[in-house]
Parts: sequence; C-alpha cells; structure tokens
Amino acid sequence: MQREAIHHTPSHKWAYAYDLRTYHIRLRTKKNDVEDVVMVAGDKYDWNGNLQEIVMEKIASDQLFDYWEGVIIPKYKRFSYGFRMHAGTETLWKIETGFYAQQPTPPGGYFEVPYIHEVDLFDAPDWAKNAVFYQIMVDRFNNRNKENDHDYVRPWGEKPDIHSHFGGDLQGILEKLDYISDLGVNAIYLTPLFTSPSNHKYDTVDYHTIDPQFGDLELLKKLVDECHKRSIRVVLDAVFNHVSEQFPHFQDVLKNGEKSKYKDWFHLNHFPVAVQDGKANYDTFGFYGNMPKLNTANPEVKKYLLDVAVHWIREADIDGWRLDVADEIDHHFWREFRGAVKAVKYDTYIIGEVWGDALRWLQGDQFDSSMNYPFTNSVLDFFSNNGRHASDFAEEVNRLLVRYPQQTNEALLNLLSSHDIPRSLTRMGGDKRRAKLAAVFMMTSMGVPCVFYGDEVGIQGGGDPDCRKCMEWDEAKQDRDLHDFYRIVISLRKKHEALRCGRFRFLQASSEKATFVYERMNNKQHFTIWMNNTEEDVFLAHPMLAGGWRDALTEEEVATFKDQLRIELEPMGYRILYRNI
Amino acid sequence: MQREAIHHTPSHKWAYAYDLRTYHIRLRTKKNDVEDVVMVAGDKYDWNGNLQEIVMEKIASDQLFDYWEGVIIPKYKRFSYGFRMHAGTETLWKIETGFYAQQPTPPGGYFEVPYIHEVDLFDAPDWAKNAVFYQIMVDRFNNRNKENDHDYVRPWGEKPDIHSHFGGDLQGILEKLDYISDLGVNAIYLTPLFTSPSNHKYDTVDYHTIDPQFGDLELLKKLVDECHKRSIRVVLDAVFNHVSEQFPHFQDVLKNGEKSKYKDWFHLNHFPVAVQDGKANYDTFGFYGNMPKLNTANPEVKKYLLDVAVHWIREADIDGWRLDVADEIDHHFWREFRGAVKAVKYDTYIIGEVWGDALRWLQGDQFDSSMNYPFTNSVLDFFSNNGRHASDFAEEVNRLLVRYPQQTNEALLNLLSSHDIPRSLTRMGGDKRRAKLAAVFMMTSMGVPCVFYGDEVGIQGGGDPDCRKCMEWDEAKQDRDLHDFYRIVISLRKKHEALRCGRFRFLQASSEKATFVYERMNNKQHFTIWMNNTEEDVFLAHPMLAGGWRDALTEEEVATFKDQLRIELEPMGYRILYRNI
Repeated sequence: MQREAIHHTPSHKWAYAYDLRTYHIRLRTKKNDVEDVVMVAGDKYDWNGNLQEIVMEKIASDQLFDYWEGVIIPKYKRFSYGFRMHAGTETLWKIETGFYAQQPTPPGGYFEVPYIHEVDLFDAPDWAKNAVFYQIMVDRFNNRNKENDHDYVRPWGEKPDIHSHFGGDLQGILEKLDYISDLGVNAIYLTPLFTSPSNHKYDTVDYHTIDPQFGDLELLKKLVDECHKRSIRVVLDAVFNHVSEQFPHFQDVLKNGEKSKYKDWFHLNHFPVAVQDGKANYDTFGFYGNMPKLNTANPEVKKYLLDVAVHWIREADIDGWRLDVADEIDHHFWREFRGAVKAVKYDTYIIGEVWGDALRWLQGDQFDSSMNYPFTNSVLDFFSNNGRHASDFAEEVNRLLVRYPQQTNEALLNLLSSHDIPRSLTRMGGDKRRAKLAAVFMMTSMGVPCVFYGDEVGIQGGGDPDCRKCMEWDEAKQDRDLHDFYRIVISLRKKHEALRCGRFRFLQASSEKATFVYERMNNKQHFTIWMNNTEEDVFLAHPMLAGGWRDALTEEEVATFKDQLRIELEPMGYRILYRNI
Repeated sequence: MQREAIHHTPSHKWAYAYDLRTYHIRLRTKKNDVEDVVMVAGDKYDWNGNLQEIVMEKIASDQLFDYWEGVIIPKYKRFSYGFRMHAGTETLWKIETGFYAQQPTPPGGYFEVPYIHEVDLFDAPDWAKNAVFYQIMVDRFNNRNKENDHDYVRPWGEKPDIHSHFGGDLQGILEKLDYISDLGVNAIYLTPLFTSPSNHKYDTVDYHTIDPQFGDLELLKKLVDECHKRSIRVVLDAVFNHVSEQFPHFQDVLKNGEKSKYKDWFHLNHFPVAVQDGKANYDTFGFYGNMPKLNTANPEVKKYLLDVAVHWIREADIDGWRLDVADEIDHHFWREFRGAVKAVKYDTYIIGEVWGDALRWLQGDQFDSSMNYPFTNSVLDFFSNNGRHASDFAEEVNRLLVRYPQQTNEALLNLLSSHDIPRSLTRMGGDKRRAKLAAVFMMTSMGVPCVFYGDEVGIQGGGDPDCRKCMEWDEAKQDRDLHDFYRIVISLRKKHEALRCGRFRFLQASSEKATFVYERMNNKQHFTIWMNNTEEDVFLAHPMLAGGWRDALTEEEVATFKDQLRIELEPMGYRILYRNI
C-alpha cells in the first residue's frame, strides 16, 4: 500500500459531526491500491468496553485517490480511532503517530474526537438546503417604475456596456413574482440594492437606503412580504469588503486626511490620500481607486457593518446574505457576523463569494455556503466539450465533493451562470441540448441550484457586461421550450427529497466516451440518472434491484432485464429513473 | 514525480502569515523525489505586474516526505501562486485545480491568499516564546505554613498515593522564590489553586477562592508580585471542562433534579441524576462520576467561567492560563475565552492541554500553545533507547515541526516530565547522562521548555501518583551536579535568542547509530549542537564556514579543519558550538 497517499486528520472534511450523534470519518488511499478499510474505535477512558469495528465504504475516486467513509455513533459523544487497511496479504495500521504492521496499543497515539459539541457543528438552514434559487440583477430584470429612471437610462434590451443603466427596479420584480413563482423557484438572490452610483451597486455609498433608482424600504418590505406569501425566501447582497469612493466616511478622509476621524476605517498607506498614475495609495478592491477597502478589524467599522447586516433582517425580514468578495475580509469579522445575524434570525442563510476551495470559511463558524464556481467550471467544461470522457468528469466532481463535509455539500450554491461569468448557453456554443444536460446535472446534484435570471428563456451573453443583458419579457422572443424544461426539472427537484439531500455516487462513467450513470438516494427513494453527452445514440446498462423503477418525468414504468436496467439514450439524451424503497 | 505525495492547501501550516508582511508557503513531496521547487506568485488583479519566482528550500524530511518552504513578501497583502517542480527532465505544475505539464494560465485555479489580515495572525506573546518554565504541583513543592494543614496531611517525603495530602502551599513557594530564581527559570506554572477536596485540585468546588490549604487571595497577590519583581511570570491552571461533584450548582442539581435552575449547566441525560453501577447518567470527565462535565455552550456557564478567567488576571495580575482537558471543550468557548482574557491583558499566555496534534486549536483564534507531549514521547523514547538510529529520531522531530507554523512551534510548551507522566530520569532507567542529553535537546529546541519541579535535583518516579513525590529540599539528598547542569543550560537558552526563535534544522543524523548534529540560527548567531546518544566514543564531522566557532558553555575556540568542524564526543556526550554572524 502506498503510504504517501494515505491521508487522514481528525478534523474538517476528514472527521466531522454530521449531527449531534453521528460522526463521519474519511480516509484517503491511493487509487485502486487498498482493498478494504476498517475503522477501529473505542473510548479512550474505556477502550474495550466501547469497542467498535466499522467497515468503511469507498464513496468516491478521483484521478489519484480512493476515498473511504465510515459512520460512527459513539456511545459517549467522544471516541478515539485508527484504521486497519488490507491489500492482498498485507495489513497496515494507520493512527495519528504513523503506520504500523500490527495494531498499536490503544488509545495512545490514536486519532481522537475528544467530545462532540452541538455548538461546533456545521449546520446550514434546512430551508436553504431544500431551495432552488433564482438570481436577479435588479437593474436588468424589469423596469416597472419609470418615474425613478434617470435620463441616462437606456432603452430596455439594448446591448449593455459597463456603464449602462436600464432602470430595473423592485417594483419590476414585484410585478413578476407570479412569473418567478410559476417557474418553481422558492428563493431569490438579488444583487445589491443600496445606494450607489453604478448599475451593479457593488460600490455602496449608503448602506441604510435602498437606491432610489430601485425603490425604498417600504417597497422592499412589500417585496419580501409578497415573496414570503408565495413561500419564496429573499437573500440580499452585502458588499462589506469595500465602499464607493463617494461613501461619506471616505470623502471625509479625502478632505481631512490624517485628521479625519475615519482614517482608521480604511487601509491608508500614505497621506495625502490619493490616486496617482492610476495607483491608489490606499488598499482597494482589486486596483480600483474608486472602491477603497474597509478595515473590518476596526471595532467601529465592525459595529457599523454588523448593524447594517442586522438592520435589514429586522426591518425587511430578509432570509439571508450573499457576501461579496468575502474571502478578502478577515475571519474574525465573519465569525462575529454569523453570531450577529443568527441571533436575530436563526435560519439566516449566509453565502460567501469564494471562487476556489472555501473550506477555511465553511467550518460552522462563518458561512453556510459559498458560490460553487469550481462546480460551475467542471460542469460547463464537460458538457460544452465533446472530447472529454465521463470518467474524467466523474473524478473531477468527486474531487469537489470530498473537499467538504456532506452537509456542507448539501448547502453549497451551485450555479451555471452569474453576473460575473459568461451565460451557460453561450458556453455551450448555443447548443440548447447541452445547456439542458448541464442544467439536469445541476438540478440532480448535491448542492442548492441557482438559476441566473434569463437562463430559463435562452438569454445568451459572454463575460461582463454581456452576461448582464436585460431580461427578455417578450414571449415571442423567449425560448418557451427551455422555459418549460426549467419548470419541469425545478419541480422535480422540489418534489423529491432524495435529489436534494440524498447521497450522491457515480455508478459508472465511461473512460472512452462521455456517458455516465449516477445515483441519488435516501432512505425513501433511489434515483438513477443516465446521461449521454455525445452526438451518438448510446445504450447503457447497469445492475439494479429489480422492480418498481419509473421514469421520474413521465412516471412510466421501466423494467429491469436480468437484474440490469438497460437504457437507450439519444444524442445529448438523459433519463431520470427512480424507485421507492 | 509521485503525485499522490504532493500536498498543499492554502491555509493552516501550509500557508500562513508569519507577520503582517511575510507569508510562509510549504509544499510536501515524496522523499527524495523532487529536485527543486519554485513558487510562482502574482497578484490576481495584475499578475505580470507583480510576478515573483521564489526558489523553495527543503526545510525538513520525515520518513515519507520532503517539506519545502518559500518566504514571500507580497506587494499588496495578497497573492495567488502555484508550484513548478523539477525532477530530471520532468517539469510538473501544481495549482489548486490539479497537476499540469505546462504552466496553466494564471490566475484562475491558482492557490490564493486573498488578503493578509493582522487580526487573523497567530501571534503568541513574546515573553512566552522567550521563557523557560518551571511547573509546580503546589501540594508537593514546599509546606511552609503548618497552620493550614489538615490532620490528614502526611509527613513530607512519604511515598504518595492518589489520596495523599502533603501540605504544600503558596507560602512554601514564596519561600523558595530565590531557589527558583537562582535556577534561572523566568516563568512558573502552578497546578490548580482553587478550593477542591483533592490534593491535585483538578476538581473545583469554588473558582473564586484559593483553597485554604494553599493560602488566600492576598498570598497569591504577594506571590505574583514577588515573582514579577524577579521577572518571573505566573501561569495558573484553569479546569473548565468539569467540576467537583461538590460544586454547589451540581449539588443543587442533585437535590432539585429537573427543577434545579442549574440543570442546563451540565450534560444531564436522565433524572434523577445519579451514579448507578459505577456509571453516571450525566456526562463526566472520563468515567468519574465525581467530576461532572460543564455545559460550556450554555451562556450562563460561559459567562461564569469567563468571569473567573478575567477575575484572576484582574485581581492577581497572573500572566497566563494553562487549560485542563482543553480538547473536550467547544471551540466557540475557547474563541470567546481568548477574546476575554486578551482584552484584559493582551499578552496573557494560553496553553491548552491537548495530547496529540493540536492544530485545530492553534489557528490564532484559540490557544497560543499546547502541552507538547508528542515532543516528550519522541525525545524520551529516543534518548532512553540505545537501539534507535538518529535518522529515525530526526524524521520524527521533523514530522512534529511541520505540523505547525513556525511561530506556533516557537510557542509550544515542551516538557520531559509532568504530573501526568513518569519522570524523565525514570524513563531513562536512572541514567543521568541520558537525562541530561534529553534536557540539552529540549533546551536547544524550538518551543518553550518546561521543567517539572524536582527534575533538576534528580527526583525519580513512575506514573501518577509516583511522579508527584514531594520536592527534595535536603541538599545532601539532591543531585547537585544535575542541579548545576540545569542552571547552566537554562542560562544558555536565556542568553541566546537563536536558541529560542532561530530556525531549527538537522544537519546530519546517522542512519546507523544514534549520533546527530543540528543547528539553530537567526541573523545574529549560528549554533550547531552535536550529540552522541551511544555508549561509544564517536567522531563527527560536518562542513562549516571556517572561523569564529566557540564552545557555548566554555567560550573556548573551536577550529575548523579543511572547512569542516570535527568533533569528538564521549558516550552520551554533547557539544554546543556557536559563531556570531
């Protein structure tokens, strides 16, 4: 057995409480190297009296590794443990102090979960895990109130540039709630609402007012209220990393320099504060001198921002915050943020914008979720590209799944498009079949799906600003077939719990072409999803328990043959089958 | 290159801010597999404008792996990075998304340090990193005040059993401050002082009073004051995991059951609360029914304990807390604990009792240090055992060093004996030469040395209670040679900063016998320490810059020969050489 590949630490994704009673333990070994793994666990204060041997299951493989998982319910909320691995005639023990040919005397040097504390659990809100989100860029969704339009507002549907305003507003969203509700989503995430000079409003001037272009507090309250009546949750966008240069406290710094009482609100490196030769002499978002970075370690700033976060929950009863540029703000701030918002509304959903591995922020003490762009990249790359094999894709998806504890995966925000990346249909070269296949994958994956406004009617567009086109409201110009498809797959996800929080496993993934089968399963239902990401008709077969299989979209029965399901798929075809357990 | 062995994550010990400007990046590769590693780093918002190529240094090897470290000072407090590895003609890139033969286009998918925040740094107090500790078990150190002795107090020096009391007290410590000061230590750690029925007092009845057997608040204040006059810091022991069954709140629970207003202070599983057939129906420390576990997630309990922690700093001006059974208490509690005590005294030193890998608690938000028992085990095992080779020991020590960031290693509490393990001299089979060699290793290692009372005069003893014998004050019965030795090596460590916070590297470690050479180095001094853990005379040579080498104990010059230092060592011999840079 290759010792270098074998990995475990008694924390994070490798050892975590799934709930107060249940612990998940994971071990990594070299791919196809170890035949079986047994977790040997006891209580360090009474080893033999509480001994458990738990056979671990191989839950996933990526390019290099196999991942094993064992589930343990210790009698006394604590346990110590080691691993016994077998390959051929070889037995190898792994404990914290190293590798051993024979079992080391327990419990000294074993891995240890000293005590399972409820307060330390990663515990995202249930409603979020069960939601399907719809992301709305407010300026581009619907312009209902023309009276709050500036004279620079462009005609609806014109090609946007980075400065264009189109007059979309909260009244416009309110007017389209029936449309949103009919689509089937049960949560919306709105890009920033607070007063700001830009069309996107990621550069705040006043955290306490809704931008008059969008509406006011009363309108937001009405919108949230109407959403709640339709069982739709509302998440707003919090931009706490930086402000607009027009933010009054920064203006004070520009005016009064070292004498400004707000000089410690920012990261100033020189006085006078200035932008020279295109470089700001203070810390900024990126290199944008018009977006000075806030000093979130300053207690005054912290109090100010936490008050903002709590204020909008209290005033408007919103259900969550999406946190812009969250990875550039300190961890202490986010821990206090979590404490503050959850104290006001315990099931506030907190989504951080982190583009890579977000484990540092997802340990139960900071965020509930992150924007899952690694998922986006893998899915779009695979479904847009004829050349890749399914085994390669499965390895990538597995690698992402083992990055996090299971309940974290259940809460991640999966997306195929956003205001920051090209539209998924465009990534697919306009091939709607591919876009649908990617969307089916998202809707049947672990993680909370989020549809970017307009994807459901076939809006295309490249990178910012092209992905931020106005919503198409002319039904004649909408792709109604795509719209119906989205309604159906959203409804399917909402109907079946197994598709939301059931276990996810690849059952087969071809190493020669882009065909694969995966399952979602809980204790009530077993789903198998069959996909053909090729231009040819294919025929897939997989051993299955006989009887009771149905097509989840048509409810037609699907018979097994010789203990196999045998499925024909047209090019870019898919089938979603299930049976009740 | 073996890809399974290659490991990096952009957090914890693999990527950490050493100070506000300097970041340390570490990479792991298979042992003797990769020839060189270059870190390629840029700013994600302006990659080419801030490009740095940093050659990484191989800082350590253990049984399976080489560890590489690169130091980067980014221009804008943030950077993204990848690794370029070479072996023979092969080049391999590693970034967050995987391995590549050619450089992937930056910055997408690269590892990322989004922003370096001072508040997120691991930053233990400077005084602690520079301290030499002396641990005192109060009941066993010196009985000065006979008036506070119960009638069950045993004659000083009698063999202890687990119930023996010997009458040691604060007055006794006060009387021996000149002795302690003369030994050279500049910090003491006292086992618990608060009112409790036991001799060890790890089962508290009243957190607000010093046990009358030991003294009172005034006496503690005087002791701390006298210590501070001698530049000796004082750390007390906080037992917050559990209490004595005589703790009034638990007594109330026993009496009033479900009606007790303190029922949520504990983890009660059934009513009536009871111990039956030797098993408590409430959570306890270990399985000791007389030590009920506190519910530290209960805000009342939290407030109570944090008030205690702050109270003794305010009242008695103590300098730190050693936290008993720290790993069984929740992380939220410890984060608040850190905030509370550091707010009252910013350089309070926080040492958690964690016996294994303590990284979960050492991320800057909880503890400054832990009891470094893994170090203890490795050192005692190697120096007590003729059979092991130095290369094996070096691999073990390196494995421990790469567990933590450098500044964490500098703050860990290293120990060879304590109230919980057999005495080091006993572990050495009474061989004083071996005990000295182990002590020299501790005093010249990275980490804060802690001498257990009496080790310096040759007290022996097996596991608890035998390791807790009374201090020997009869000079005729003390090992004065050992005492002088301790004075010398403590003084040496205190004199030279390089021995405290300089870098630590093995220069050579024999794979055939127990001889080795290591260095400590900062920008002022270079130390080389030569050790012969065998029963034979040996001759060691190592290439060295010529000139300026001296014996650190005698100040005699030591000449190089043909650019080598050539050193003869007697059985169990050692030399400590240094040169000024």
